Amino acid sequence: MSDFELTGRNEVRRYAKRGKYDRDTIYPILDEALICHVGFAIDGQPYVIPTIHARMGDELLIHGLKGGRMLEHINAGNPVCVTVTLLDGLVMARTVFNHSMNYRSAVLFCRGATIEDPAHKLAAMERLTEHIARGRWAEARQPNAKEIKVTTVIALEIESASAKIRQGPPGDDEEDLALPVWAGVIPLPVVPQAPERDPKQTEDVPMPDYIAHYRR
Amino acid sequence: MSDFELTGRNEVRRYAKRGKYDRDTIYPILDEALICHVGFAIDGQPYVIPTIHARMGDELLIHGLKGGRMLEHINAGNPVCVTVTLLDGLVMARTVFNHSMNYRSAVLFCRGATIEDPAHKLAAMERLTEHIARGRWAEARQPNAKEIKVTTVIALEIESASAKIRQGPPGDDEEDLALPVWAGVIPLPVVPQAPERDPKQTEDVPMPDYIAHYRR
Repeated sequence: MSDFELTGRNEVRRYAKRGKYDRDTIYPILDEALICHVGFAIDGQPYVIPTIHARMGDELLIHGLKGGRMLEHINAGNPVCVTVTLLDGLVMARTVFNHSMNYRSAVLFCRGATIEDPAHKLAAMERLTEHIARGRWAEARQPNAKEIKVTTVIALEIESASAKIRQGPPGDDEEDLALPVWAGVIPLPVVPQAPERDPKQTEDVPMPDYIAHYRR
Repeated sequence: MSDFELTGRNEVRRYAKRGKYDRDTIYPILDEALICHVGFAIDGQPYVIPTIHARMGDELLIHGLKGGRMLEHINAGNPVCVTVTLLDGLVMARTVFNHSMNYRSAVLFCRGATIEDPAHKLAAMERLTEHIARGRWAEARQPNAKEIKVTTVIALEIESASAKIRQGPPGDDEEDLALPVWAGVIPLPVVPQAPERDPKQTEDVPMPDYIAHYRR
């Protein structure tokens, strides 16, 4: 897939060699992450709100209850920055200065609008559901007319973007390598645990495979 | 500890009952999280950047290489929004509409300035290190004069803040409870894995306990 154009807005300046601008790097980060952080500014005051997202082709989808401040602000055409971060591990160096984290992050500069077309909106709701758990849309009760009406789904166009990635062992300088300090990486994956059945579930409904063996 | 005043800026409007405004709720979220997302706006363009943080009393600390755009923007007195999100699990409801996530998030409205006082700056660097791994500051080689000089540490004053918390099973409506769809929660904790020694570590340095048994 193609690259996003490198401009002043998406340029990774600190540790520039960690910067990536191609969709082949950026899209998998969006697809793996369960949440994003949406940044917008009203009268110069920045806000950052965590929310669920999903990618549908080149669109980034977010949603919420109708009338929400963030969604209305975006729908009015204002610029938004969406950042997705996957933390992979802690980098323990011999020197305090070279401590770091292993991570994969993507920063997207977007503008968006509410999806009004009913078929597009339903497809977006399906995509948001399937992003979280593949197979869920077909199994759960799909949204009824009232639920669809009170839900706003926004399609964001990604105008510009970058990824920033750090992986691997610490980067201590040569002269510090012999220090008697343990150095290395503590991997920090998210590990799904045994699902907890809703106490209100009285019937013996079997647990589907995509929940019993949940993985990103 | 006391509450942050409830204003238009920090009011949790969507699912208002999930909103909390007391430091006893907000500070532990900051202390558990390894990263935050910093939002700021330059000429109306929002940016959201992930970074390491630490709390020192009522101050929130962030840092980076000297001269970074974000740190200079904050040091110039501009408002910043810092959001910390802990994802605890996926809430699988019988209905698509009631799917959700269990999470604890904190949204902070801050202004900050570079810490110039050398003792304050060193204490802040120690706090940032100890936030990641308690015991590390005393063991690793502490920053030398050059490393301190090229590091900027910002102390953010938290002017206003809120937390938002969802926990527990799905909230399906009564009429959907009998649907034959598995419902419940998939817990999604971060689980530290076996530390990976730096291949460049040639001497037999023992792995300290706080790394071998790393926990948040």
